[in-house]
Amino acid sequence: MASARLADPDTTESTNDISGTKSNDKHGKDTRYRKVKDEIKQVGSESKFHVTPVSEEEHELNNTVPARPTPELKFDIDDEADTLSNHNSITALLSSKFRDIQKRLKQYGIESPRFRKRLVSRWESMNYDVCENVLYLKDQEKYKSKKWVTLRWLSKWLVMFFIGLGTALLAATIYYVVEKLAHYKFELIQHYFDECAKNNCLYQPALLWMGINLVVTLAGASLVTFLQPLAAGSGIPYIKSYLNGIKIPGLLTFRAFVAKTVGVVLSILGGLACGKEGPMAHSGSIIAAGFGRGRINFCNGKTLSFYSVFRNDHEIRDFVAGGAASGVSSAFGAPIGGTLFSLEEAASFWNQDLTWRVFFSSMVACFATNFLISAINGDPTKLADPGLVRFNAFKFDLKFDLIEIPVFIFMAVIGGLTGALFVVMNYKLTVFRKRYLDKNWIKIIEAGLVAVVSAAVAFGLMVGVNECTDKAPFDSHAVTASVYCSDKKHNSLSTLFLTTPEGCLKALLHDPFESHGPVSLVAFILVFFLLGVWTYGLSVSSGVFIPCLAIGAAWGRLVGIGVANMMPENPNLQLDVGKFALIGAACQLGGILRTTISLTVIIVECTDDISFGLPIMIVLMISKWVGDFITTGLYDMNVEVMGLPTLPFECPPLCDDLRASDVMNAPLATFKTKEKVENIYRMLKEETFCGFPVIEDDPRTPGKGKLKGLILRNQLLVLLKKKIFCPEGQVPPRNITIKDFRDFYPVYLKVSEIELSEEEMTYVMDLKPYYNPSPYTVEQKFSLPRVFNLFRGLGLRHLIVTDENNVPVGIVTRKDLAKFRVGSKRGLVKIEQLKIQDK
Amino acid sequence: MASARLADPDTTESTNDISGTKSNDKHGKDTRYRKVKDEIKQVGSESKFHVTPVSEEEHELNNTVPARPTPELKFDIDDEADTLSNHNSITALLSSKFRDIQKRLKQYGIESPRFRKRLVSRWESMNYDVCENVLYLKDQEKYKSKKWVTLRWLSKWLVMFFIGLGTALLAATIYYVVEKLAHYKFELIQHYFDECAKNNCLYQPALLWMGINLVVTLAGASLVTFLQPLAAGSGIPYIKSYLNGIKIPGLLTFRAFVAKTVGVVLSILGGLACGKEGPMAHSGSIIAAGFGRGRINFCNGKTLSFYSVFRNDHEIRDFVAGGAASGVSSAFGAPIGGTLFSLEEAASFWNQDLTWRVFFSSMVACFATNFLISAINGDPTKLADPGLVRFNAFKFDLKFDLIEIPVFIFMAVIGGLTGALFVVMNYKLTVFRKRYLDKNWIKIIEAGLVAVVSAAVAFGLMVGVNECTDKAPFDSHAVTASVYCSDKKHNSLSTLFLTTPEGCLKALLHDPFESHGPVSLVAFILVFFLLGVWTYGLSVSSGVFIPCLAIGAAWGRLVGIGVANMMPENPNLQLDVGKFALIGAACQLGGILRTTISLTVIIVECTDDISFGLPIMIVLMISKWVGDFITTGLYDMNVEVMGLPTLPFECPPLCDDLRASDVMNAPLATFKTKEKVENIYRMLKEETFCGFPVIEDDPRTPGKGKLKGLILRNQLLVLLKKKIFCPEGQVPPRNITIKDFRDFYPVYLKVSEIELSEEEMTYVMDLKPYYNPSPYTVEQKFSLPRVFNLFRGLGLRHLIVTDENNVPVGIVTRKDLAKFRVGSKRGLVKIEQLKIQDK
Repeated sequence: MASARLADPDTTESTNDISGTKSNDKHGKDTRYRKVKDEIKQVGSESKFHVTPVSEEEHELNNTVPARPTPELKFDIDDEADTLSNHNSITALLSSKFRDIQKRLKQYGIESPRFRKRLVSRWESMNYDVCENVLYLKDQEKYKSKKWVTLRWLSKWLVMFFIGLGTALLAATIYYVVEKLAHYKFELIQHYFDECAKNNCLYQPALLWMGINLVVTLAGASLVTFLQPLAAGSGIPYIKSYLNGIKIPGLLTFRAFVAKTVGVVLSILGGLACGKEGPMAHSGSIIAAGFGRGRINFCNGKTLSFYSVFRNDHEIRDFVAGGAASGVSSAFGAPIGGTLFSLEEAASFWNQDLTWRVFFSSMVACFATNFLISAINGDPTKLADPGLVRFNAFKFDLKFDLIEIPVFIFMAVIGGLTGALFVVMNYKLTVFRKRYLDKNWIKIIEAGLVAVVSAAVAFGLMVGVNECTDKAPFDSHAVTASVYCSDKKHNSLSTLFLTTPEGCLKALLHDPFESHGPVSLVAFILVFFLLGVWTYGLSVSSGVFIPCLAIGAAWGRLVGIGVANMMPENPNLQLDVGKFALIGAACQLGGILRTTISLTVIIVECTDDISFGLPIMIVLMISKWVGDFITTGLYDMNVEVMGLPTLPFECPPLCDDLRASDVMNAPLATFKTKEKVENIYRMLKEETFCGFPVIEDDPRTPGKGKLKGLILRNQLLVLLKKKIFCPEGQVPPRNITIKDFRDFYPVYLKVSEIELSEEEMTYVMDLKPYYNPSPYTVEQKFSLPRVFNLFRGLGLRHLIVTDENNVPVGIVTRKDLAKFRVGSKRGLVKIEQLKIQDK
Repeated sequence: MASARLADPDTTESTNDISGTKSNDKHGKDTRYRKVKDEIKQVGSESKFHVTPVSEEEHELNNTVPARPTPELKFDIDDEADTLSNHNSITALLSSKFRDIQKRLKQYGIESPRFRKRLVSRWESMNYDVCENVLYLKDQEKYKSKKWVTLRWLSKWLVMFFIGLGTALLAATIYYVVEKLAHYKFELIQHYFDECAKNNCLYQPALLWMGINLVVTLAGASLVTFLQPLAAGSGIPYIKSYLNGIKIPGLLTFRAFVAKTVGVVLSILGGLACGKEGPMAHSGSIIAAGFGRGRINFCNGKTLSFYSVFRNDHEIRDFVAGGAASGVSSAFGAPIGGTLFSLEEAASFWNQDLTWRVFFSSMVACFATNFLISAINGDPTKLADPGLVRFNAFKFDLKFDLIEIPVFIFMAVIGGLTGALFVVMNYKLTVFRKRYLDKNWIKIIEAGLVAVVSAAVAFGLMVGVNECTDKAPFDSHAVTASVYCSDKKHNSLSTLFLTTPEGCLKALLHDPFESHGPVSLVAFILVFFLLGVWTYGLSVSSGVFIPCLAIGAAWGRLVGIGVANMMPENPNLQLDVGKFALIGAACQLGGILRTTISLTVIIVECTDDISFGLPIMIVLMISKWVGDFITTGLYDMNVEVMGLPTLPFECPPLCDDLRASDVMNAPLATFKTKEKVENIYRMLKEETFCGFPVIEDDPRTPGKGKLKGLILRNQLLVLLKKKIFCPEGQVPPRNITIKDFRDFYPVYLKVSEIELSEEEMTYVMDLKPYYNPSPYTVEQKFSLPRVFNLFRGLGLRHLIVTDENNVPVGIVTRKDLAKFRVGSKRGLVKIEQLKIQDK
């Protein structure tokens, strides 16, 4: 967590110090200092930097000790520096970046954080590596029989089954409640509409509409804001980050579940421009975590515990992968897409057995959702609705022709550009919200305001545009208001606004050619785009898939009408207007969310027609490229604003010269194998590190022994709480098992919860049975890309850096790697070093 | 490569030695020996083993020195053994396994290898890790600018584009040649058939058919056998193993390409029961490797070289992933399935950028294949044939009903059982072939024999069964022979036999209800099943997908006919016969190949109808489970018979107690940083190791210095060849660049190609610029699962095991990990330790 600032070369005298420290120094005398060699011998420009020590700027959460000075930064590429060198142009590049960022930071001042250029220190990494201490081995003992291996294997499949089933039940329930209530709401409004259009009392439906929206949305927003703010939005950025390996406390709790599921129903009934699909991934994950932990923590603090065998980051994450996949699968009827969704973030840990289990659970979810929704719709054996939303109801055969590809590409470019616009606008809004709308009551009022405005604008457009059509809508249950239209006609915007956003999307995809005129569509697009931007990021549970798709479908339909009008001799094109709407929807989604493979597969599965898969893939890729040229995707933007230290898949380029010793945290806080309770307590209180190397107690070199293992803060806290210590020379009075540690998972103790007497402080704790005796280590010379691969490939939380004598000199954590971020803005690669801040 | 055999506890006196070696021994005096502690303290049975040294049994390829004794095996779980222990029930389990295997090996004798219980020593691991020596860093220097990063990125995409395009061109060419020639062949035969049925000269078509088959197949078999035997079969097991990280010399060469592509055309024209789809994955991979290397080595030894920047295992493998995906994609029109196919084996190295590139290339392949085949069929803009084979031509809407699920499950069980039978029969045949048919001319004759028998049996059935039908076949171009049927009818087997296996599959899926009677179908199933078993594994280029699908479609159709006859009141069932054929095909494929996620997606994509995806997934999973209960899948069986050391996704269970020191190879062959040429030359000649730790030259402890790095055999050979050495004290006369090493990729030098004079032998080589200064290392105490994760997650070839003082004591290679294999025969987990043998 120590950070280094490179000084401006213009203001510092240039020297070039390479003789400082030989890393084969027997006693590792420089190990308590961070070494970075900055040896710039760029051909052409002989500019050399002297790098001066600077004090830290960032203060860690709970960190009360003053920051230590970080002396003498030197890049140490070759320990003897007698061979080929001169290869440090990267350092020049990087340091120019450092200066850049520094200057900007100065401009903004520390008080106004640049939301996209920082990591928030409180996000910790999950620990995917197994702590193989003696307790663990003893516990494993029990399971070391063929019977247990088989039983464990079976129970994992069983849990996955229930995860799929639970998610499907939830999806069907939400579907039922939303459809029934929304239909009732819109029928009521339509009734007043049609009554009042004749009797000149249109203020009645307007007030009714705004009133319902306001009340319901306020309820939904309050629920989310007060119960669990992490339930706001779709939750997909959080779930992606979780699968990437970040601990997000509170994300997978019962509170979040209630806020998420009840919240999304209220959001949609409250008339917000949002969908119920995105939140399914989050809800499914919570269900999975609940089943995996075998315990429910109710809101009132009560707990129901069933089994504890899966309570560790590794197992829970596997289940959550299944839950997220099930959620996506039951939302879109896309079992393959759902599986990919889970696995593309968790890719380093992909294995075929897990993949099958995830696939199984998402298949169960898809199948059960299909069964339940078919049952709700009357015939449980029909199995025609595998998900909450489907695009597959095209009455004609969707076929595409080579000749249409250019039109599609054009649409993809539009999708990319408008998508980037959406992201930029939403980003500005998000930053505004973070800065000025940070009080709970303001958040709730904003949500209410959006709901009222949504109703008001829809009302205004329906009355103002007043385009009439006599085409029956595709959905026979659709609510159609006549307003000012003659008897057999209806207001063409009414089928878009007097329905849920899903209904609106379906109408745009499947309604006949003349249902929606260009004027209505243009008005709809503008309004829905702005409402979509405004809605995403409110403190309500809401998905962004459906609004994106609806916006795209609307302008896609507009393009379809244009093409049909340009070639009136071809009547097929009128039939094909739904095809253009579909492509438009895909383009817009690609432009806003920057589709990954999984999203592509989800849309293809949702369309239920693989022959249309290829053009969908093409437009998704192009819209992604166009969008990436301008800005990151919406979810990535979210992740950046939250300061979540997600690790990319590969180490950023141009970082090959950086060494483990350059990025590690030093000086180190270490423990001896038998350590005084007082030292442990003090260290835990003063330091924010979550892992501490345990070293050999060598009296000749105090604090610099050979590495014996790694012990985690959580373990130490449990040990202190359970008082596993004794006066020196005695044997600890009680034993502790791995279950005692599991009981505290995942809600760990805080230092403030530990109470120790004066006498206990003098006792000694034997760490030997508890530390991980074989943590992964690297030598100081390891290059950043290889440290990165190790970290990413194994899902590490801590990586200890040692010198040649196996003495620990530093520790690398997730944030040390995540702070190097690649941006490819405007087609050029650039690397930024992010700040690590508290907030 | 040293292997240890545990002695039988019945014949050896039991002792329990744990005091032997403390691993914190300062001078690592035991490092030249492998240590395995076998400390059995099982509760209940107090049986203790004393483990005695045994000499090696296997001789490495090129290994001429006698094997060293491997003394005193001891499991070393805790270095101080003063804490909780008693957790070694695994050792008992493992050693009982060892005894088991040993006994069986004795029964069979070393001369008759148990093909599925061994690894072949010549298969080396690829090196996915970058050797960051000074040369590499110097080379990277050039590319350390934004421009180069962008250019490199672009060129990777461009190469992927050409890989996709090349694969599509190949697919279209094969399609065109096979379709035209096969049609001509079968029309000729049909002509004689219909002529001779009247004139009683049926021996003419029989002889003609057998003659054509014989000649063409002999040509195809000779091509494969003499040009490149690795081109035999579908190549998918090899490609999977390659992607898993195994070096297979000759697999991705121009010779293999010719043998594969021309061979598959000849195989199909030769009337063998095989498809042209499987080989596409191999062909695509070769195209990819060619584009990646930027060089073609022609058969006559000539070389065409374009660029060398991508010449390393890492980059080539990324391209090959794209090539394999493109091949699958153009074979089945399944871009998503193709992408998954490549990535599920290479999962540890999955990253989103690579995924997009692979996806892009398989999309290009699919699209271009579609365009080219559409053009061949008359209308290039129609784009209706995205792959070589498709199941999508159902004339009715495929819908399934909940009520049909039990029937499908029943079919899946049949598929699993018959699939297992197929694998078992083919395995017996393969072993027979390995033992007795190992001469080239015998292989070719066997292929010819199969071709003749295929023709003879088909002829016999057509004449013998003589079922007539008046239903026009689905494919209007199909060759229909009347034989003895009346004018407007044709022999119902003629549409199945007088066509390529693909045509046969299409007929079974899409022909009208009454085209094929039960008698014909039963005869067809039996014959085709046996021919399929016999054909797979011949020394010809052939795919197994299509025969599997055709067998399944045939019995699926039979089930469909049965169901329709049981419920004659439902006429829809007659229409649905194709649906049952499709499910049958999926079941059979699942039972034989044991589908992975990718195969599931491929079939779903091929069917072009996602609503049918769910039942297909269900039957695939069930048939896989049923089959796995009895035996491994066909590809896995192939891999096992070849002795390829593929690594599974997770470490086998029950191995937590094994330590790095138990599995590592010791004693070690090490070099000093400045080493005598004579020592290097001798070591290379005498040892088969591919990597050598480089150690500090400490005169106090000769041969036991601290680890400095790792140097590869290939690097040393190049250095010797280029004579990069000099008399002691002088500076080497010439320099060498990374390009010199790349020129030898992937065809490395042999020791026999090195010529050194007496004087040169006394010179000294400075290894410093060449060795990898920061290889991955683990401590001796590391548990096997974590060593495994490291190896698998990072794609390592060598993992150095060090003691506490950073002195190397052993080295772990792929085979040391791959030799622990899990079998789950009959639902129970079991672990085997495989032998490592030469052949």
